[in-house]
Amino acid sequence: MTPKIERFLAERRADTPCLVVDLDVVAESYARVRETVPDAAVSYAVKANPAREVLELLIALGSGFDAASMFEIETCLSLGASPDRIIYGNTIKKQGDIEAAYARGIRLFAFDSEAELEKLAVAAPGAGVYCRILTSGDGADWPLSRKFGCELDMAANLMLRARDLGLDAVGISFHVGSQQTDAGQWDVAIGRVAEVFKTVAERGLNLRMINMGGGFPVRYRKDVPDLETVAQTIADAIKRHFGDETPELIIEPGRSITAEAGVIQTEVVLISSKDYANGIRWVYLDVGKFGGLAETMDEAIQYPIATPHDGKAEGPVAIAGPTCDGADILYEDAGYKLPLGLKVGDKVLLLKAGAYTTTYASVGFNGFPPLKAFYI
Amino acid sequence: MTPKIERFLAERRADTPCLVVDLDVVAESYARVRETVPDAAVSYAVKANPAREVLELLIALGSGFDAASMFEIETCLSLGASPDRIIYGNTIKKQGDIEAAYARGIRLFAFDSEAELEKLAVAAPGAGVYCRILTSGDGADWPLSRKFGCELDMAANLMLRARDLGLDAVGISFHVGSQQTDAGQWDVAIGRVAEVFKTVAERGLNLRMINMGGGFPVRYRKDVPDLETVAQTIADAIKRHFGDETPELIIEPGRSITAEAGVIQTEVVLISSKDYANGIRWVYLDVGKFGGLAETMDEAIQYPIATPHDGKAEGPVAIAGPTCDGADILYEDAGYKLPLGLKVGDKVLLLKAGAYTTTYASVGFNGFPPLKAFYI
Repeated sequence: MTPKIERFLAERRADTPCLVVDLDVVAESYARVRETVPDAAVSYAVKANPAREVLELLIALGSGFDAASMFEIETCLSLGASPDRIIYGNTIKKQGDIEAAYARGIRLFAFDSEAELEKLAVAAPGAGVYCRILTSGDGADWPLSRKFGCELDMAANLMLRARDLGLDAVGISFHVGSQQTDAGQWDVAIGRVAEVFKTVAERGLNLRMINMGGGFPVRYRKDVPDLETVAQTIADAIKRHFGDETPELIIEPGRSITAEAGVIQTEVVLISSKDYANGIRWVYLDVGKFGGLAETMDEAIQYPIATPHDGKAEGPVAIAGPTCDGADILYEDAGYKLPLGLKVGDKVLLLKAGAYTTTYASVGFNGFPPLKAFYI
Repeated sequence: MTPKIERFLAERRADTPCLVVDLDVVAESYARVRETVPDAAVSYAVKANPAREVLELLIALGSGFDAASMFEIETCLSLGASPDRIIYGNTIKKQGDIEAAYARGIRLFAFDSEAELEKLAVAAPGAGVYCRILTSGDGADWPLSRKFGCELDMAANLMLRARDLGLDAVGISFHVGSQQTDAGQWDVAIGRVAEVFKTVAERGLNLRMINMGGGFPVRYRKDVPDLETVAQTIADAIKRHFGDETPELIIEPGRSITAEAGVIQTEVVLISSKDYANGIRWVYLDVGKFGGLAETMDEAIQYPIATPHDGKAEGPVAIAGPTCDGADILYEDAGYKLPLGLKVGDKVLLLKAGAYTTTYASVGFNGFPPLKAFYI
């Protein structure tokens, strides 16, 4: 919560729910990442928050971009991003989209399978490619699972094959999982990357780049390692595994750039109990899982909540969204407590909600419109 | 899959992914529900598929509507639905929305808490109200959880209070959970309703209506009780608990009206393996959890899948969507098998996908546009 957002909410009195993003915080977060991980090029993960205002700001600040789709690439280009600063980072691409991206000047592509490599060889001849390796996902609040990446021996073979196909076999990528709370996972992953570098070097291919993805954690309700700790872990691991032959490094922060810049203002629609015995209060907000809070799935991301009654006596609550869907519960087991004085009509703030909210909103489930957003 | 949809897909060659809904099947499903449960008034659950074409058809066929929001109410009214055929079925409503609905002529409202009842008394004076009771959710593939409903003693007290507040205390509702696969759950729920009827009758209030909600199951991959079985269970339970004093009955089918009418055509974007040892094929489609398939959460709803190679040798697969999100996996544990001959670029059909798909789609997660839909 910043004075700027506070003032905006007080003056604008916008209908709830709405997200307000303070662009100064985006700029500060970007600067902090640049300072803390100075050896890595930054490619902002567009999917975290693809708002025009955010992208324009980051373009002005010199950021690169990690795009998940041709749609995101077009958005970045239309706002003036240079194609040589855009990575097509999705390992799952239609051949037609690869062709389109290549035609627009994109020259760095992710892959993690032979079939994708074949597409790249045909649709993006000579382009730079890097292979994503599997990580365990341990320690991540929003793990990326086995959906992405391949095992190390396969990655080595695929990089050699990339070279044989006439592609520029640039390097290796990993992603420790979004909202990674264990700094040691970067160390483990960099060690795995080093193995692949070594294997292919023995067969005459010298890789030169590591894309370390994102995952830099944001402090929601629980303490997490700070960016400095993660950066030090990365620097130590690079030093240990690569000595003075430091590869080019890329990082793809998304959440850590935009999350803290945003606040969702929502209204308490109803407070009720289900029975006389148990008495737990159910607090229903006018924003829910299908209105932008998809990351509350399995109660994974736990937004700090501010109310007009903070500091007064509080009690346990379950918190749910406004739709007629049983899955639209935000928190039932996460141990949230809210003030006993909370009442219907109160405005409540979900903090650190600037990432992975707006575009997750459904087009109109239960008739509710998507999350409105203001960038100030 | 109907000949009409087959012809449309062959002739139109629309970009994937897209949903095609055969309105004839919607009409047939509605007719079947009317015939099979002749004693109940039908209020179609708009949220299942709120497309204009579906609503216009159901208005023409004489259906009533169960609306989850003021937005859905406005949609129904704008298409010509009569306000006396629309129920405001969400137990979580802003007071302003209740006022607006009342002003537009809506006269039947759900609630499950004292706070909501107070709002109704102020904003919808004299309107008909019914209290929703808790159900266990057992047997439902998409349970509605403890988010909705209250215990029986509370429901009885609230109905008496509704009368005292000058509201028309009409009856009791329940919902056995969406895609309910155990017909016995309707019997249990009707028994619970009867208890509330009896309790309040002893205190001078005669209730006259049971809203049995939805939950009528659709046969996706697994066998489910057919509608006739559910209808017979309901009829038996009503007879046993209410004798000849049959209350007015309302049902709110959604999934069972529109699911079977729709087919999603999607394209295979990538097929890959993660390693040499395990070998399970990952099949990536151009539609996923954030493009309309939200009900694949926890692999709950399992769409039958048709491919151009059906009937040939098949093997196990994991199936995922096209986004860079680890949560965008459709099926990893559900035991899907697909033909070994399946290849990148193949068109694949997700069957029975006409309900709870279009409006669940995100506005643009990872840049991908919402699910297109055609109603024919």
